Amino acid sequence: MLPVNPERFLADLHALRAFGAAGVGKGVMRPAFSDADIAARGWLADRMTEAGLSVHVDPVGSVFGLADGQSLLLGSHSDSQPEGGWLDGALGVIAALEVARAAVEAGGPPVSVVSFQDEEGRFGVTTGSAVWSGHLPLETADGLRDRDGESFGAARARMPGRSGQFVDPARFSGFFEMHIEQGPVLDREKEAIGVVDAIVGIRDMKVTFEGEQNHAGTTPMQGRRDAFQALSKFNTVLAERFANVVTPRTVWTIGHVTLHPNASSIVPGRVTFSMQWRDGDTDRLDRMERIIRETAQEVAASGGFELSYGPLLGLEPVMMDDRLRGALEASAAAEVPERWRVMPSGALHDATNVSKMMPVAMLFVPSIGGISHAFGEDTEEADLVTGLRVLAGAVDALG
Amino acid sequence: MLPVNPERFLADLHALRAFGAAGVGKGVMRPAFSDADIAARGWLADRMTEAGLSVHVDPVGSVFGLADGQSLLLGSHSDSQPEGGWLDGALGVIAALEVARAAVEAGGPPVSVVSFQDEEGRFGVTTGSAVWSGHLPLETADGLRDRDGESFGAARARMPGRSGQFVDPARFSGFFEMHIEQGPVLDREKEAIGVVDAIVGIRDMKVTFEGEQNHAGTTPMQGRRDAFQALSKFNTVLAERFANVVTPRTVWTIGHVTLHPNASSIVPGRVTFSMQWRDGDTDRLDRMERIIRETAQEVAASGGFELSYGPLLGLEPVMMDDRLRGALEASAAAEVPERWRVMPSGALHDATNVSKMMPVAMLFVPSIGGISHAFGEDTEEADLVTGLRVLAGAVDALG
Repeated sequence: MLPVNPERFLADLHALRAFGAAGVGKGVMRPAFSDADIAARGWLADRMTEAGLSVHVDPVGSVFGLADGQSLLLGSHSDSQPEGGWLDGALGVIAALEVARAAVEAGGPPVSVVSFQDEEGRFGVTTGSAVWSGHLPLETADGLRDRDGESFGAARARMPGRSGQFVDPARFSGFFEMHIEQGPVLDREKEAIGVVDAIVGIRDMKVTFEGEQNHAGTTPMQGRRDAFQALSKFNTVLAERFANVVTPRTVWTIGHVTLHPNASSIVPGRVTFSMQWRDGDTDRLDRMERIIRETAQEVAASGGFELSYGPLLGLEPVMMDDRLRGALEASAAAEVPERWRVMPSGALHDATNVSKMMPVAMLFVPSIGGISHAFGEDTEEADLVTGLRVLAGAVDALG
Repeated sequence: MLPVNPERFLADLHALRAFGAAGVGKGVMRPAFSDADIAARGWLADRMTEAGLSVHVDPVGSVFGLADGQSLLLGSHSDSQPEGGWLDGALGVIAALEVARAAVEAGGPPVSVVSFQDEEGRFGVTTGSAVWSGHLPLETADGLRDRDGESFGAARARMPGRSGQFVDPARFSGFFEMHIEQGPVLDREKEAIGVVDAIVGIRDMKVTFEGEQNHAGTTPMQGRRDAFQALSKFNTVLAERFANVVTPRTVWTIGHVTLHPNASSIVPGRVTFSMQWRDGDTDRLDRMERIIRETAQEVAASGGFELSYGPLLGLEPVMMDDRLRGALEASAAAEVPERWRVMPSGALHDATNVSKMMPVAMLFVPSIGGISHAFGEDTEEADLVTGLRVLAGAVDALG
């Protein structure tokens, strides 16, 4: 296996955390193109150079450390949530750096490194890798604005050392992204590694039941067309019907509810709510959608409600590449034989975009308590090192 | 029976509607102390004087037409909702005027008339009768402000002809209030008269379930503590348990829901919602409260939620006086033998306050489609006249 250096790897992770270190625990505030983010990317470029890689900052501020010729690409992102943790993205970047360094020291195989820009969506959604993949046109990205009204175009102009050219994806034979799980499964099961089989697909739409707004004192229960009751019934019936279709890895969420007029003395006449569901299998997403629409239709018809839908938003599932995933599985099986599993990624990652250009695979390490996007995010250092070793083993096997 | 004059009664109702006539249908905009309201009260005082009553405008602008000596008091309110109908309150005032007029013409019994001020709550809740009853101290009322910041104290100062004295309630042997139902029951059942047995009590409190906010993609269903799911389960279980306790006249409403953070991609960590229930029987209100608290406690305990309550707001039920109610029932039975019922009032009325000082009773006429507090409020004129006759019959019987 490639001779990775756990101490050097952990030291670099802590060094990166110093840029934007904030909050309690190991919190970080390093959103895309903040002073801390730009400084961190400069520091990272220096480490790449030291490791013998050629630094290339692409037009949107994603920082590549390129090996000569054809290579694997490893990485993630070094920007953070406005109030984030020290590992979300940073772990995959520093693990990539350490594997690339070890590969150079061992005389091969060639490994390139990337830190994508704005994965956390200050401006868009996985903006840097979305532009690189062609999924998001650069002109469109430049018009995206953050909460304070600053445009992506203005923000990226501040990044020093940018090239006018994007990196040619054809130089990479595949992409590995190591990431924290951001969920509770590995931590709860006391496992060290999750090999991702698919980044789940998401479907999301707003549903509206329109009933009849009425006086909450003078309107008998029997004649009511109470929009909240329609929502509650829909939610209950849906869970029963999903039971025959879902797997333990399927999720669905009603996270947004707007009642009208939302007053304690008025029978609510209208509710609009979000219905979101995620699964790694497109057929299952389709079946769930049919059940959602049938259930909503039945609740509306039986209670005298008008039913309407907002636009259906969605992302298709992304399957991991068999060969790359197989290398991760073999490496995990060798490193932690009883303490790894195959699992989906419920969250979106840069790998989603990169999969449009080359084979991709991902591995997860545990998130303590499932916490992420918060200062309290953390992982045991032993688990971080295990992740590094599994990644290095897979690269070695493919090299 | 007292020789009431339906044409004169209806003509006066339409004349009163001309003050603030607005909107579609028979809509009215005549909120307390608006120019239209003050003018309408002046017109009403003139009609009282014509009828041989002594006009007394009390310190808060409630207009009394007093018969000499001990008398029954009949009335309601002539102020309207900001966008209201022509009958809500006005009906009870003009019916009282016609019965008092007919009583004078018939040589007795003595009948006094009142139009209370600000029943519709521009400033408080049933403000005029609440101050008269002592339930709301005048100094407190004077500090109440409407949406535009005007105080009740400043508004009542604009009312001409006010006395410095409140009317002594001891001069009245009882109070009758005729009102539109403001609900759908009489209209749906094609009945003409509802004799009120009780003005229902109301209890209202905010309930909060605090679970765990999480990523809607990476958090499996099994480990979630989803506050919306807690609410939905509470609502479902509550309805099952209430089934053994409630009557067809009991109502309960979840009309206000606030989810946190209320985003489609986040498992909601907290929900605060309103739980309101109404019934004419205090014991039943108590039993329902116990069921609510037990159910919330069980949902919280079984799903790992923290449960908390806001303050319990409430009004106790007000029972109608047996003798006055009996007179209304006998009169209804004589006038429309198969087309009347005993029913609760789900809404609050001036009679609630007046009941602290003397026996009270109420009767309802149908609201077409159950509509009130809207321009579309209306009642068939034949039903208005039936109500007038039933009221006159009861007064005659008690006289």
